[in-house]
Amino acid sequence: MDCEICRFKDNHQLLETKYWSINLSEDQYYLGRCFVTLKRHCGDLADLNEKEQKDFFKIVKKLEAAIRKAFGADLFNWGCLMNNSFEKKPWNPYVHWHVRPRYAKSVRFEGEIFEDKEFGSHYKRKTGKRVTKKAMNGIINRIKLNLS
Amino acid sequence: MDCEICRFKDNHQLLETKYWSINLSEDQYYLGRCFVTLKRHCGDLADLNEKEQKDFFKIVKKLEAAIRKAFGADLFNWGCLMNNSFEKKPWNPYVHWHVRPRYAKSVRFEGEIFEDKEFGSHYKRKTGKRVTKKAMNGIINRIKLNLS
Repeated sequence: MDCEICRFKDNHQLLETKYWSINLSEDQYYLGRCFVTLKRHCGDLADLNEKEQKDFFKIVKKLEAAIRKAFGADLFNWGCLMNNSFEKKPWNPYVHWHVRPRYAKSVRFEGEIFEDKEFGSHYKRKTGKRVTKKAMNGIINRIKLNLS
Repeated sequence: MDCEICRFKDNHQLLETKYWSINLSEDQYYLGRCFVTLKRHCGDLADLNEKEQKDFFKIVKKLEAAIRKAFGADLFNWGCLMNNSFEKKPWNPYVHWHVRPRYAKSVRFEGEIFEDKEFGSHYKRKTGKRVTKKAMNGIINRIKLNLS
């Protein structure tokens, strides 16, 4: 099955557990933005089993701590939405979380400046910040270092 | 402490568990929109204890099933953001979830029409749909009936 969400798991992996894959988003407007995607193809948050649930909250703890240490994030926005899977039929939802670290102060890293201009309010949707390959690898490595 | 989020728990309660309070939002643009608020004043999703985590996922299952049965919701958007708590210092975050049921078809209920015009894409933020007191009570009662 061709599933857009499944492809999240192919790139920029930060960590993999028995149940979830954590992958850095291509869009680094919110520095450290990533996806936490269930490895099993399950379409509803209500259908997670207890092991998947428990592992999810372990990831919340571990990932937040790592990104706080790596870049000084002040807050994390977690969302499980799955709207695009309902854009056309057949609906093909697939449980994944959007994680946006939020920052009170701007961060300079690998020649890039990251500014969370909406800090204190809802995340901006049309962002699409691409960084250099060097910066991307730097972000991945620094988060990974703090995850281990 | 004067906490805006704490006040969510005072109105339109749908269900209360040992750890969480579920309350209908005043804004019913997304029919059945509600908040799932931790009863303990805890500022980070990473700091939930195991009982709170487990109970949260029980609520996901129960609440989604109830709103599907009550109004035919097709999907649920879950978000733990807490951005407004960081608008000014002292920051005072408090774990609560935003739940927006999403609908492929419009729903008529108690003389009101509910249309999810953005179905298949991200929720709209500036909604603010207020319904009559009769409709509000009707929504609460119908969800409650399906929760029990």
